[in-house]
Amino acid sequence: MEVAEMEVEKIYELIKNRQYVQARNALIEYNEVDIADFFERLENKELIRIFRLLPKELSAEVFSYLPNELRLQMVESFSDREVSDIMNELFLDDTIDFLEEMPANVVRRVLSNANPKMRKLINQFLTYPEDSAGSLMTIEYVALKKDMTASQAMDIIRKTGVDKETINTCYVVSPRRELEGAISIRNLILAEPSQKIDSIMQPHVISVKTQDDQEQIAMLFRKYSLSAMPVVDNENRLVGIITIDDIVEVIEQENTEDMHKMAAIEPSEEEYLKTGSFVLARRRIIWLFVLMVSATFTGNIMRGYENVLAASAILASFIPMLMDTGGNAGSQSATLIIRGIALGQIASRDVFRVLLKELTVGFVAGIVLGAANFIKILLVDNMIFKANIPITLVWVVCLSVSLTVILSKVVGALLPLLANKVRLDPAIMASPIITTIVDAGALIIYFTLAVNFLGLFA
Amino acid sequence: MEVAEMEVEKIYELIKNRQYVQARNALIEYNEVDIADFFERLENKELIRIFRLLPKELSAEVFSYLPNELRLQMVESFSDREVSDIMNELFLDDTIDFLEEMPANVVRRVLSNANPKMRKLINQFLTYPEDSAGSLMTIEYVALKKDMTASQAMDIIRKTGVDKETINTCYVVSPRRELEGAISIRNLILAEPSQKIDSIMQPHVISVKTQDDQEQIAMLFRKYSLSAMPVVDNENRLVGIITIDDIVEVIEQENTEDMHKMAAIEPSEEEYLKTGSFVLARRRIIWLFVLMVSATFTGNIMRGYENVLAASAILASFIPMLMDTGGNAGSQSATLIIRGIALGQIASRDVFRVLLKELTVGFVAGIVLGAANFIKILLVDNMIFKANIPITLVWVVCLSVSLTVILSKVVGALLPLLANKVRLDPAIMASPIITTIVDAGALIIYFTLAVNFLGLFA
Repeated sequence: MEVAEMEVEKIYELIKNRQYVQARNALIEYNEVDIADFFERLENKELIRIFRLLPKELSAEVFSYLPNELRLQMVESFSDREVSDIMNELFLDDTIDFLEEMPANVVRRVLSNANPKMRKLINQFLTYPEDSAGSLMTIEYVALKKDMTASQAMDIIRKTGVDKETINTCYVVSPRRELEGAISIRNLILAEPSQKIDSIMQPHVISVKTQDDQEQIAMLFRKYSLSAMPVVDNENRLVGIITIDDIVEVIEQENTEDMHKMAAIEPSEEEYLKTGSFVLARRRIIWLFVLMVSATFTGNIMRGYENVLAASAILASFIPMLMDTGGNAGSQSATLIIRGIALGQIASRDVFRVLLKELTVGFVAGIVLGAANFIKILLVDNMIFKANIPITLVWVVCLSVSLTVILSKVVGALLPLLANKVRLDPAIMASPIITTIVDAGALIIYFTLAVNFLGLFA
Repeated sequence: MEVAEMEVEKIYELIKNRQYVQARNALIEYNEVDIADFFERLENKELIRIFRLLPKELSAEVFSYLPNELRLQMVESFSDREVSDIMNELFLDDTIDFLEEMPANVVRRVLSNANPKMRKLINQFLTYPEDSAGSLMTIEYVALKKDMTASQAMDIIRKTGVDKETINTCYVVSPRRELEGAISIRNLILAEPSQKIDSIMQPHVISVKTQDDQEQIAMLFRKYSLSAMPVVDNENRLVGIITIDDIVEVIEQENTEDMHKMAAIEPSEEEYLKTGSFVLARRRIIWLFVLMVSATFTGNIMRGYENVLAASAILASFIPMLMDTGGNAGSQSATLIIRGIALGQIASRDVFRVLLKELTVGFVAGIVLGAANFIKILLVDNMIFKANIPITLVWVVCLSVSLTVILSKVVGALLPLLANKVRLDPAIMASPIITTIVDAGALIIYFTLAVNFLGLFA
């Protein structure tokens, strides 16, 4: 249940009347996400006052859901002690997320208020590349030993579990902290108290390394339906865990990034409405410019057929349809292949199967669309609008449509596979680039057929 | 750790030598997903033999990860008893997933082997609409009562937990099964054994109704970082739970669907390589046809300017660049808005903020691209290629680029918002449709300017 409107107004009223304790008592009934939403409506002074009244753990949770601007303001109003209290309560991954977005003076202040061990950890985590397992993981996991009994393990969880990001999966490590297995809290609870961890743990644990890429990690989470995954260093020592809530964010981020790239936009994680117009413009102009210049070469092809166009101006009127159909046909193939690669369903080695499929699709679609055009020109343009388009030209147009569709399907499917092969992101080989390439092909096909069939001279 | 190649070969060898028990003992060390992967390589007879040797619970888990064709073959080889054993071990949501994909005779056979209570449940679940909470949920959850103590609750979990999809979150229900709260296993373990559930549960639980749409549910999972969510009926009675692993699938499905729609493909959950070419062709031809016919109207605009084109054939050579730039500029805006709406970051009420941003972006990008074109034509076309394009035409082309970009940004941003407003999926208002509309606008702008500035007569 989300914070119902009425409740919000009631709590708001309490705050206005300076009944802060009552407001706090009403608020703590709700989810930390809803409390964070509510805080965004308050003035800074009220916010700080209520925030200070929250239980420590809850206040840290709420803090991790607040937007960066607000967190920055809050940290500036806090005493050093308060800053250090919040950082101690936050899970390490949330601390890192926060610090990555803060200006240098805030980072310095947080670091100077952290104890030496924490400072070292933060500094280490800040060096992991963005999008790597290291930058996603947190260190608050439950570590058990093989020779413990189930009841000893439960005691450890009771003692330390409150500070862990999850206790649903616990990890078994050797004295040198090498990852040896995993055990779910379910199996621990269901086990006989005297059973050794060794005999109930799952020994083959799916793990990733600190430098592994988040997209690959998300794929493993999906494949194995995981809710948490251990991260190890190059010596197989357990250094952290990644939890599913962060992976859900990663999946949405990766999808957004792909969609942006597919539309020739420099990708960004920033929300549209929170981004300035000039930043938005900058992220789009570069590709628009590159594509515009490329498209002028298509224009050059037409300039080569200036005489043909002058002799039969009606030729030009079919160009938009031809270019758009080619572009659309190519984008369809490119999108299917790019998405298939992203989901791990298509690999570079499938190139011949893909080619065969797209050729077939191209032939079928090409013939259907060519025929549809034929009927449309004769029935609509010539009979209804009396356009008097000569039958040879109709044949040229329809044949061009068919050949363009086949070409587009093949180009649209092959370019993303090629990009993948040479380790570029296939998502850049989407509609905008495919359209530019296919346009040129469509015009060459069209004018070549026109010159040969209509007896026009280039 | 995934099944290493060597191990696979070793287990394979054991099976070839008919050492089935040893093969089984080696296999059960691995994750059910990897065992399912391994099974796909076996012949049907071997597969059935090994499958029968697996522990019941594991065999059901492996079964839920096998592809449909294989499951169909297996069910046909199984005795009625075996079918009913597997169905009893499967979680209800996996049973439903399986039955939804099976032919009617298999469904009948499964139903006739289920006990009456199960049969009723299956029939009920099969009626929930696809993409609804009802079709995603499962009934294997832990239900507790308010007046239990923490230790009584733990006893219940020990007794029934093995058959539950998750015990990480347990739900508190009234005697009439109304949802009253939720409690995490962590809080149960950390609580004093004598504490009442009432005092440790979270009373404000985020829940959904059986008929709620999966896209909305996925958004709630993301917003609240949930790992499970209760599903209630219209009387707030708990009827099931949805777990995060199914939501991860939903998120990828929804993203795939959006990308397909954005590329004018009829969306499908089927994998590309597993889909026949004719089915692939059918899913694409409909939109290609609609867009092709729409694009012929753009051609009609050109036909209206036949005399202009005949008088100055060089005019035509700028059309591809103009159309492509307009299409790309519009797609960029459309993609950003469609994605923003999908992530819940942009709503219909933001229309004026969006319009203002896109107008600004359009002006900036329009002027930059117009100016770039100006320089390019003078420097490259006229100076290097000696194309002798008259300066008035250069002005017409560049002004057309600027105006087209502004128009495209506005159209690209407004159409998805409009679609959202009238409850259509904004994803259909993407590149293909925007391109078709913007092409027409670009040509009208271009020819109008050409007629007026160049003194050509339409």
